[in-house]
Parts: sequence; C-alpha cells; structure tokens
Amino acid sequence: MPIRSTEGDPVRDAEALERLATARVARLATVDRAGRPHVVPIVFALCGETIVSAVDFKPKRTKALKRLANIDANPRVSVLVDEYDDEWSKLWWVRVDGSAQVLPAADAGPGLASLVEKYQQYRSAALDGPVIVITIDKVVGWSGSD
Amino acid sequence: MPIRSTEGDPVRDAEALERLATARVARLATVDRAGRPHVVPIVFALCGETIVSAVDFKPKRTKALKRLANIDANPRVSVLVDEYDDEWSKLWWVRVDGSAQVLPAADAGPGLASLVEKYQQYRSAALDGPVIVITIDKVVGWSGSD
Repeated sequence: MPIRSTEGDPVRDAEALERLATARVARLATVDRAGRPHVVPIVFALCGETIVSAVDFKPKRTKALKRLANIDANPRVSVLVDEYDDEWSKLWWVRVDGSAQVLPAADAGPGLASLVEKYQQYRSAALDGPVIVITIDKVVGWSGSD
Repeated sequence: MPIRSTEGDPVRDAEALERLATARVARLATVDRAGRPHVVPIVFALCGETIVSAVDFKPKRTKALKRLANIDANPRVSVLVDEYDDEWSKLWWVRVDGSAQVLPAADAGPGLASLVEKYQQYRSAALDGPVIVITIDKVVGWSGSD
C-alpha cells in the first residue's frame, strides 16, 4: 500500500487516515512559480488514495484561483488537518504530502461522489468547476498525548 | 501603515487583524529547498506588525524542525487562520503572507511576552527554543457571508 507515514506503524497509519477522512476542513499549501507558499482552507474528501477538493459555489473573487495556478506551476502540495484545544495534550494533526492535478469535473471520477457524500451542502448544487485531485505520497501524524 | 489587504478597506483590515490576533491556532506554510510546501499548525501571537511563534516544549521528534530548515532556505511564509462551520455562510479565513526569520529566544524581543500573555500554558515553563518572527507583508481576508 503506497500510503505510508514516517512512523511506519500500521495502527497509527490507520488512525491518521481515519482522522484525515473525517475532518471537515483541511488546509492546502501550494507554491507559486516564484517559490512563495500559499495556504487556504478547503473542504475535501478522501477517496481511495487521493484527496479530492472542488472549486465550488462558495463566493470567490475570481475563478482564476491562485491555488490552481500554483498547482499548474508546481504540483507538490501539503495538506493539513488538525484540532486545537487549550489543553495541549489534546492537540493532534495529520499532514499529507502529495502531488496535485486539476481536472474538469467531468473527468474527476469517483472523488466527486465522495465529496457529495461527505458534505450535504453539495447535494443541492451542481459541482461543475475544476476539481483538485491529490495523489497521496506520505502521511504523517502527531498527537500531543504521544 | 505597511499592513495592507487586497481589499484596501481599513475597516475590513481592522477586522481581519482582530480575527488574526485572537485566533488560538494558525497554520504555517513554508517551502523547502526543492520547492515543496510544508504546513504545520502553530500557536502564535500578533506583536505589532509581526507574528511570533516559538519552538516550545510540546513533544517533537527532533529539534531540527523542517519548518526552521525551510525558513533558512526560503524566508517566504504564508500563515492562515480560519474557522469552519457546516453552515458555510459562517466560514471565514484570514491569511498573512510575509517573511520569516528564526531567532534565539534571547533576541526575539517583545514577541515572547506576547506569546506568554496569550497562552497561559507558557507561564509555567521557559521559552528557550528558537523563535520564528514573521514580518507581515500582506493580509487577506474572506468571509462566506460577504
């Protein structure tokens, strides 16, 4: 199975993937042509060994989103889910490093169905914008209670 | 005042900075020497026109943190605070783009006091690790209710 963590521990890997799959929001970091990072929150779904996120109907200033231009220039991305608590022993995060591509919705495959299943907000509106499909290379997790 | 947003609207700027200042957690995106992004959650404080975050006593696998090596290779960083809600009109985020430097705690100036003031967890333990000080170049905000 190509998904691996730096821990190399199957139980921990499974827990990290479960936390990733159920998180409602993630943060997507991309890099522009000049080597500058860019980070935005995304809604997303885990679909097999990919992470899928759509450019949806939430209001945007432009359809020419920086995240898409960055992926076009440099497909390497980093995706983070985490939970904050003022009790720091409860902190945890899971990070995925991978390669992204931008596809038309019609070519995005089963990932779109995963998004609609996870977010009921997607059941009442068409997802017809570009879709970011991230192939997972590495999963790393951390917990404050370790 | 050098802090600006793409909105160019002082009221919105003030609100974005207030949301930034009071958020308990942010996500820090950096870029490594090979142009790959890296994103981690950070606790931080806004101090004047800088964001300050310390390498603290929370358990780490190593003191040679990837975020520090990345800043050494490329000082450009992107910092995100956001709030998720399944009611998507309540979503918002604020992003800061800037330049980071890593300083010994003794040279970090008033930012350390800002961290201790914001997080009571820092009142009972010494902050003697490296400190990331980010000079803010740009503040951008978005709200789902816009």
